[in-house]
Amino acid sequence: MLSDNIMDDIKQNTAVLIMTGNEIVSGKNIDTNSNYIANELFRIGVRTIRIIAVPDDKEAIHSALEEAAKLAPIIITSGGLGPTTDDITRESVAEFFGRKLILDNDQLKILERKFRNAGYSKMPENNLSQAMRPEGSEVFPNPRGSAPCIFVESKGIRAFLLPGVPMELKGIMTDSVIPYLKENIDTNESVFSRTIRVVGIGESKLADTIKPVLDDTGDIEIAYLPKDSLVDIRLTAFGESEICMKENINKLVEGISNIIPDKIYGYDTDTLEGVVGNLLLEKNLTVSTAESCTGGLLGDRITSVSGSSAYFMQGYVTYSNDAKMSLLGVDPEIILKHGAVSEETAVQMADGARERSNSDIALSVTGVAGPTGGTPDKPVGLVYMGLSDKHGTIVKKLMQRYGLERQRIKLRSAYFTLNMIRLRLLDKDLY
Amino acid sequence: MLSDNIMDDIKQNTAVLIMTGNEIVSGKNIDTNSNYIANELFRIGVRTIRIIAVPDDKEAIHSALEEAAKLAPIIITSGGLGPTTDDITRESVAEFFGRKLILDNDQLKILERKFRNAGYSKMPENNLSQAMRPEGSEVFPNPRGSAPCIFVESKGIRAFLLPGVPMELKGIMTDSVIPYLKENIDTNESVFSRTIRVVGIGESKLADTIKPVLDDTGDIEIAYLPKDSLVDIRLTAFGESEICMKENINKLVEGISNIIPDKIYGYDTDTLEGVVGNLLLEKNLTVSTAESCTGGLLGDRITSVSGSSAYFMQGYVTYSNDAKMSLLGVDPEIILKHGAVSEETAVQMADGARERSNSDIALSVTGVAGPTGGTPDKPVGLVYMGLSDKHGTIVKKLMQRYGLERQRIKLRSAYFTLNMIRLRLLDKDLY
Repeated sequence: MLSDNIMDDIKQNTAVLIMTGNEIVSGKNIDTNSNYIANELFRIGVRTIRIIAVPDDKEAIHSALEEAAKLAPIIITSGGLGPTTDDITRESVAEFFGRKLILDNDQLKILERKFRNAGYSKMPENNLSQAMRPEGSEVFPNPRGSAPCIFVESKGIRAFLLPGVPMELKGIMTDSVIPYLKENIDTNESVFSRTIRVVGIGESKLADTIKPVLDDTGDIEIAYLPKDSLVDIRLTAFGESEICMKENINKLVEGISNIIPDKIYGYDTDTLEGVVGNLLLEKNLTVSTAESCTGGLLGDRITSVSGSSAYFMQGYVTYSNDAKMSLLGVDPEIILKHGAVSEETAVQMADGARERSNSDIALSVTGVAGPTGGTPDKPVGLVYMGLSDKHGTIVKKLMQRYGLERQRIKLRSAYFTLNMIRLRLLDKDLY
Repeated sequence: MLSDNIMDDIKQNTAVLIMTGNEIVSGKNIDTNSNYIANELFRIGVRTIRIIAVPDDKEAIHSALEEAAKLAPIIITSGGLGPTTDDITRESVAEFFGRKLILDNDQLKILERKFRNAGYSKMPENNLSQAMRPEGSEVFPNPRGSAPCIFVESKGIRAFLLPGVPMELKGIMTDSVIPYLKENIDTNESVFSRTIRVVGIGESKLADTIKPVLDDTGDIEIAYLPKDSLVDIRLTAFGESEICMKENINKLVEGISNIIPDKIYGYDTDTLEGVVGNLLLEKNLTVSTAESCTGGLLGDRITSVSGSSAYFMQGYVTYSNDAKMSLLGVDPEIILKHGAVSEETAVQMADGARERSNSDIALSVTGVAGPTGGTPDKPVGLVYMGLSDKHGTIVKKLMQRYGLERQRIKLRSAYFTLNMIRLRLLDKDLY
């Protein structure tokens, strides 16, 4: 049970997340919900100060609620709202707040209608529990699933119980929880954040390189966030004056950008694929691909951008040597002499693709994705990336640093190949 | 500080994980480490009973350690071992266990050597902290990074401090932590688990379908774990008799398999890509691909299998209508009359690929990946998947159920296309 005095030292714009589910604590499923919730809260100035994952166990959930209630006035739970006997969040929360569970007839009607619409003649009995809620609580609708979100307010704590299915949770957060919080949280603090998105330099070296401008950062939090061979530098300021914070952060962004201009592919929500796509659109150019070790992943990356059909028409996946020769016209002598994984082959693959596609630019990738297939001469991780355009053909060589896995090597190669075209198109002497 | 009597009620084979990092609680990075650790522990019979994520804040880490120490005898932390001032796990843990931090000269030499090997003339001063450890602790090496793992044992608690970089953490878990635990944990309980890997049926319908055999499951835990349009059914038993548990679980696996034989693509660590690859190898067949909306993702999936060069030689990414016609010989009339996203086009793409590749089988995918490009006739998520072989050409039509994102539609299509070839090759009348 909650005591009345706990709210004294707790900051109003903080939250604790409780993720329930055996599949999380047993390591079967990765918890993506907490990441989503924390980020959404972050964007409206609410700081998540703890995330607790517990099994589908009443005692564990209760203990987590106790913990959470001592720490923050906003508690968001995920999971445990299903129709099975494992789903105990409703009752655990009701008990914690000292309320009994009541049947909400309106919710029951809504549920019954949902099941009818889904083709059931009768709602399964198990689902009755999804129309229950703690006395005095409110309900936010769940248009993508059966269990509604339950909102309980008690002694300064606001608890939101969300279903565990990511798509349902996201819908409810967007439609109901975030709007509610924006309207009802008294926060003096704003948060302002910008992200610098970097490619082609590792985290440690990056940190070292931009150190000079970081001495004067004051209250700006800096986080280096590596992912998939790319690195984000996230700059965050919390404070009262939004104008002041924006100015400081933008000044720092500029300072960092001046040190590593060529390594920054974008800001905030830019993606490398999107940035390359925009450059191609801008300059009215088309690109084709010739992939060996990436197997199609480069094409997948390019086409992850909606509207990419404006600049990408075709690609070749030439996985075998024969395919390189027959589809792209790579010279058999070249493969014999230098091997499939070579600068020479990368050149001919790119040239061949450009010619046959009649595209302005063509990219090629050939390498050793591993874990087998490496030799002392051509070890796992060795990749040649080619770019062919009207100005000529260039090749970049990539080596892996540690024991990267096959798919990591493929993805890294794909991204670095995209970066080649980015740098090429930004070269004012050429384009 | 720890009291002496806390170990009385705690089960020896349980663990609490503490993940430190502002980037986790702010929702910037998804925490995959806890999932990895929890799964690895699960496989050796150690149950994770709580996962706590905290910011890089001494008070928060201390409070999490207090919490953890009350709950389980094994504590594993991730993050906070870097060289910056944010990295405070070492000192927080030292303080919690009442130990001072000492400089380990052996570790210092190892660190200095690592930096020399990486091309630094001198180790950066910041990294000195990575040679510090709590007095009385031990160190496990980190071959993939700079910070070694620290192991502290105190009053019945065993704490392992791991670096937050996933690749480094995984290496240390595999090389040192798991072997240590296997050797040093006194556990009466064993765990036995099997996974049934399912494709082509949603989670709810799956649960309903296999319900008949589930009535007799006793102590077997069943978890439905959907991921990427595939579903895993994980069956777990904890107990003392390994033989008994294996028997019960295998019996249930058999029962489930008998109900949905065609929907099961594999067990345990089988992947759909790998299963398809094995079938192709077994039957000495080759496959080629003709991709439109997937953009190369199908080829990427096929080549995610090491050794796939034995059965996959080439693929076409025909993103534009022109490419479908010029690379695959699709009849312009067909595209004019039925559209690029049609059964007819899927047929011609598959036939064209097979002919030109001279492969035994060819797969095609053409659809509307969205979010733009949909029409009432051909909505977002509509995909046609073709398969062409010596027995003829078949096409399957796929519609999406909810508001799936572009990449999800692509991946779902790729997997369902792979499933087509799996079912085809399992058809004893044909192969």
